[in-house]
Amino acid sequence: MTQSASFQARPSGRTPDQLRSIRITRGFTRHAEGSVLIEFGDTRVLCTASVEEGVPPFLRGKGQGWLTAEYGMLPRSTHTRSPREAAKGKQSGRTQEIQRLIGRSLRAVVDMEALGERQITIDCDVLQADGGTRTASITGACIAVHEALDGLVKAGKLAANPMRDFVAAISVGIYKGTPVLDLDYPEDSDCETDMNVVMTGSGGFVEVQGTAEGGPFSRAELDSLLELAGAGIAQLVVEQKKALGIPA
Amino acid sequence: MTQSASFQARPSGRTPDQLRSIRITRGFTRHAEGSVLIEFGDTRVLCTASVEEGVPPFLRGKGQGWLTAEYGMLPRSTHTRSPREAAKGKQSGRTQEIQRLIGRSLRAVVDMEALGERQITIDCDVLQADGGTRTASITGACIAVHEALDGLVKAGKLAANPMRDFVAAISVGIYKGTPVLDLDYPEDSDCETDMNVVMTGSGGFVEVQGTAEGGPFSRAELDSLLELAGAGIAQLVVEQKKALGIPA
Amino acid sequence: MTQSASFQARPSGRTPDQLRSIRITRGFTRHAEGSVLIEFGDTRVLCTASVEEGVPPFLRGKGQGWLTAEYGMLPRSTHTRSPREAAKGKQSGRTQEIQRLIGRSLRAVVDMEALGERQITIDCDVLQADGGTRTASITGACIAVHEALDGLVKAGKLAANPMRDFVAAISVGIYKGTPVLDLDYPEDSDCETDMNVVMTGSGGFVEVQGTAEGGPFSRAELDSLLELAGAGIAQLVVEQKKALGIPA
Amino acid sequence: MTQSASFQARPSGRTPDQLRSIRITRGFTRHAEGSVLIEFGDTRVLCTASVEEGVPPFLRGKGQGWLTAEYGMLPRSTHTRSPREAAKGKQSGRTQEIQRLIGRSLRAVVDMEALGERQITIDCDVLQADGGTRTASITGACIAVHEALDGLVKAGKLAANPMRDFVAAISVGIYKGTPVLDLDYPEDSDCETDMNVVMTGSGGFVEVQGTAEGGPFSRAELDSLLELAGAGIAQLVVEQKKALGIPA
Amino acid sequence: MTQSASFQARPSGRTPDQLRSIRITRGFTRHAEGSVLIEFGDTRVLCTASVEEGVPPFLRGKGQGWLTAEYGMLPRSTHTRSPREAAKGKQSGRTQEIQRLIGRSLRAVVDMEALGERQITIDCDVLQADGGTRTASITGACIAVHEALDGLVKAGKLAANPMRDFVAAISVGIYKGTPVLDLDYPEDSDCETDMNVVMTGSGGFVEVQGTAEGGPFSRAELDSLLELAGAGIAQLVVEQKKALGIPA
Amino acid sequence: MTQSASFQARPSGRTPDQLRSIRITRGFTRHAEGSVLIEFGDTRVLCTASVEEGVPPFLRGKGQGWLTAEYGMLPRSTHTRSPREAAKGKQSGRTQEIQRLIGRSLRAVVDMEALGERQITIDCDVLQADGGTRTASITGACIAVHEALDGLVKAGKLAANPMRDFVAAISVGIYKGTPVLDLDYPEDSDCETDMNVVMTGSGGFVEVQGTAEGGPFSRAELDSLLELAGAGIAQLVVEQKKALGIPA
Repeated sequence: MTQSASFQARPSGRTPDQLRSIRITRGFTRHAEGSVLIEFGDTRVLCTASVEEGVPPFLRGKGQGWLTAEYGMLPRSTHTRSPREAAKGKQSGRTQEIQRLIGRSLRAVVDMEALGERQITIDCDVLQADGGTRTASITGACIAVHEALDGLVKAGKLAANPMRDFVAAISVGIYKGTPVLDLDYPEDSDCETDMNVVMTGSGGFVEVQGTAEGGPFSRAELDSLLELAGAGIAQLVVEQKKALGIPA
Repeated sequence: MTQSASFQARPSGRTPDQLRSIRITRGFTRHAEGSVLIEFGDTRVLCTASVEEGVPPFLRGKGQGWLTAEYGMLPRSTHTRSPREAAKGKQSGRTQEIQRLIGRSLRAVVDMEALGERQITIDCDVLQADGGTRTASITGACIAVHEALDGLVKAGKLAANPMRDFVAAISVGIYKGTPVLDLDYPEDSDCETDMNVVMTGSGGFVEVQGTAEGGPFSRAELDSLLELAGAGIAQLVVEQKKALGIPA
Repeated sequence: MTQSASFQARPSGRTPDQLRSIRITRGFTRHAEGSVLIEFGDTRVLCTASVEEGVPPFLRGKGQGWLTAEYGMLPRSTHTRSPREAAKGKQSGRTQEIQRLIGRSLRAVVDMEALGERQITIDCDVLQADGGTRTASITGACIAVHEALDGLVKAGKLAANPMRDFVAAISVGIYKGTPVLDLDYPEDSDCETDMNVVMTGSGGFVEVQGTAEGGPFSRAELDSLLELAGAGIAQLVVEQKKALGIPA
Repeated sequence: MTQSASFQARPSGRTPDQLRSIRITRGFTRHAEGSVLIEFGDTRVLCTASVEEGVPPFLRGKGQGWLTAEYGMLPRSTHTRSPREAAKGKQSGRTQEIQRLIGRSLRAVVDMEALGERQITIDCDVLQADGGTRTASITGACIAVHEALDGLVKAGKLAANPMRDFVAAISVGIYKGTPVLDLDYPEDSDCETDMNVVMTGSGGFVEVQGTAEGGPFSRAELDSLLELAGAGIAQLVVEQKKALGIPA
Repeated sequence: MTQSASFQARPSGRTPDQLRSIRITRGFTRHAEGSVLIEFGDTRVLCTASVEEGVPPFLRGKGQGWLTAEYGMLPRSTHTRSPREAAKGKQSGRTQEIQRLIGRSLRAVVDMEALGERQITIDCDVLQADGGTRTASITGACIAVHEALDGLVKAGKLAANPMRDFVAAISVGIYKGTPVLDLDYPEDSDCETDMNVVMTGSGGFVEVQGTAEGGPFSRAELDSLLELAGAGIAQLVVEQKKALGIPA
Repeated sequence: MTQSASFQARPSGRTPDQLRSIRITRGFTRHAEGSVLIEFGDTRVLCTASVEEGVPPFLRGKGQGWLTAEYGMLPRSTHTRSPREAAKGKQSGRTQEIQRLIGRSLRAVVDMEALGERQITIDCDVLQADGGTRTASITGACIAVHEALDGLVKAGKLAANPMRDFVAAISVGIYKGTPVLDLDYPEDSDCETDMNVVMTGSGGFVEVQGTAEGGPFSRAELDSLLELAGAGIAQLVVEQKKALGIPA
């Protein structure tokens, strides 16, 4: 059977539909209102959520909040050292793409009117990279933001947590001809098609970004990738709830 | 019937599956090796392809070519004037995302080994914007690159045109509850889901980028958007071939 | 006769005192309050004028308006591709010189008190370059600004158009020993003296910028260049008025 | 007695000559040739050492190596969020001062001729800040560099580790009139004099940087601060050796 | 008589055709190959010429030299402090215009073939500004470059000084209706027309840059300004020769 | 005797404890509220103090003033030309370190409450460099600031000069084994230990910055350097007072 053949083929020995081991550490640092270290196997991202009263000028007086995200990789989170963006004096196109994606994903599940005139700033900093840093970032940021919003409830500033649903993300791809879930770096560097999927806890799509790395991909391949992603994200949401002590 | 109801709803009066009128003007400017003005209704983008002998340092001596793309909007291509990026001293995250997308899309259909140690630089400059500038850019750039590669064949530098297939792009979205093709600016500003699809002439997917602007979207919505996009792109490829004088 | 001898020498076959063919297309794009495509032979510049209520901080409350200009060249408007200034992160000294010149030239003919607390921003973007882009820019910008100011009159915001006079510009130079009008690129690259002259419709000088490219030039040469320029600008003003439907 | 009175005064309850608890975790991340998480109480810095064959152009062919350092703080390592330097597009003067200090300190103990034509790049990234980030950085970087150099020995590229001595750093200051060792953030924000001292394992001075934050300080105060620092650094070197498994 | 009336009008009490007192101090600093402090009244500019063996890449192997210029104002050379350009991170359009003008002016009189593959870099730094900094810069730079070239002759690297002619510059303008020579700051801030003229020792024009600050200027005014400028520059060349010990 | 032996060794022939000749020229430029040219031998720095009413936003309404400093070197103040920081678009780490040091040193002696809501900006621009530019800058800036504050007293804006004490700075170092005062460039480039000391007129320390350039330095060496520095600074304060006409 093709599936079992391809199972052998994953460098990590995982089955095609198997996530890496997921670890979530809340309160990893102590200053931020929300602080989570999330690990997808060897990929480790520190996600913090910072709350500030007030909103940027373009939103003042509109009675709603704002949420934005920034992303960075430590220079030696990667196999060979990458130049420090602060030293180069600019963020790469890739960095900007990822931080825009994280921001959109989280804004999709937070009720900005309920948040009131406050700003949440997410920082996702990659301590160690082994593929999937953007999906780990979104998944971890959701927990950090939830934590920060809980803090506003506890402080009596909000009546209820304005996060309407969970949001999580995973990568899928066609690796050596087989659709696989949660690509690690060796797979990511060598796959034919790469797709990042962001979904809510209730199974709606927030973002779908698929790219043909080798030849174009077919509709059938797209469908099987979306299936894999949906199943993977359902597992991630279970982990998010467990970390927050929320019943599944 | 829902379809006919929604038909009424498009600000332009188009049916849900109707493209705007497409106009392609080859040779719009005279210095570039390929130069095309492409219009999707009121959206007008000048796409040029420049050929240079040699490749960037990271590719030297590997016997293959390179293709890269840049994108810009004239400050008053938009409804209200946007600041000039050259004056601000940096390109926005949106600009970088789009130019990376254009580059990936075209690299997917050009055989870099067959191109040899040459670099193609695509410039997509928006003269007038009314939604869909990135899809018009990709669709126009394909023609400009084809034209430039034809020039290399005519000059005897290449035996055959190294473009393996056509590539075109279109936006689709859920507008007032109905899936529609080729969003113009009023639709784009007010749609619930926005998706850009890049496909080859033979119907393979090169990029799929869908974003929930309002609530999350369902798998059924995603499927109907992909159908619309596929039909639209097939029409665009017919126009590309017509413009290049290639039998359909 | 020297004149007829030199006539042979112009690469374009023009007589020394002959302008290139001038084409003016109003309303070339639709969002800007004034939008003009101006062509001096193969040089094509899109000039837009944008009106904004309010003035920069240093003028607030002084009861007067402001006018500023920006200039850019599309990367492949030139014979070989020029790097995109937005990508380099800075405007060249040449770009800044030209946009300062355009701004000064137009400010010289607009009554800032009559304009009131409004700002006009001119954008001159070169779609195709063949010499004389700065003079075409000034000549076209004058029409675009006039158009935008007419719009303010039609909207009842101004009692009368605050443009006091027309302004136009032309280059002149010593080419192979003969003073010639309106240099195109082959002449510009190879002339001994290059001068840009900006004058009003009533014949006053706004700017005179002459540069010795080869050896220094004499007072007699300067005088003959100024004569040529004056005659050329008078013709340009006739074209401007024709385009605006104003009797000569 | 003054000493015991001041002892009461430290916010942390430490005695004047008491270091915070020091924790050193080797191999905190896996890609770098040397990787150490160092903690001085709540201050946590990830120090990595990256080895690259070859040296910068100014040293090529001189038969010696080079070592340089970069420093950064994660935006929410601090009590309130600090802007991300990569997003601002420049490193602050403080950041540059610190990374220059780290580089000089480590170059003082590595034999550049023995290193050969290789470059060591140190990255010190502050995950959590509570005072003393530059001293923790130097102390941790020494271990990471030692580790990386040991790797070169194990790989047979060097005959012996070219680190000639250990180097460590500590802050001292006058807090409420008493000289104290290893200032934490509450002390650092409120001290009269602040001094950073860098010394070798054999007790030589590498850097002394003292600053009067309130009034000027006297020679007697300077002397007592240097005593405290010397004793503190001796303890740090014991910890460094313990972490590296080197007998004291 | 108009002239004598206007004479009263100059804030400095100078006659319309009177230069400010000119002072030239050679060897003002000791490291540069040419170093001149030039003073036009209260305007003081330090001009240095630096010689470097070799030329920029675009000229390599062509057997000719290069000359380039940079210009700056000390922040408090002006009446109120101007922001430091190094701190702002960019040179203003005005600065770039001026340094390009200085470079062109000097290149007009130096024989680049005779110079050989060497680069001269001129630095004009304004210590105190009172109008006319660009004209003082050009006039002083000519002496500094001459000095530096003399040094190459003395060192046996050149057979003869490759400066073919002197070059000097002066401003002229219409102040309160009268053409005047060498505008100081109070005149410059309040004149109707402002012109900078660069001429050679033998009376040829190198640059003419006239700008209408108030209303447009007439051909008669232009002529009288050029007369004044020519006479002023002749005096400046006398001073340049005197400073260099060259017989008039 | 060692001292007399080492005396021979200083390239300048100075004794180990001998300052270079100090020259202070007040009123070197005329626009700034305080303007001093200070010379330590061949090192020449122009120090200006500019007074502005008002303070930066972070201090508004707190009833206190602010003082900040900027530093720059003219490109050819050095032996070989250094790139102009304004042209490079950024200030080096060294420049930022020095300007931060100058600012801290002067803030240590000015009573910010007594100054009121005003800002003093110091500019230290090196006209010629021969070692010790930062210490000359601090020493000269003190006089310029004093002068500017005297002006505020004379203008009736302040009852008394808010400078509480003088501040001056000097470098010391171990040169060929002997501690020496006030290093010039040849000594600075070749010393084993380099220390900059900033002290008040009454002998308190404001900054001590010592760096091992060769091997680490001992406590005994540190002590002898501090002795030399103290004596040198006492002489500088005498010169400062003399320049200001204040009895010693």
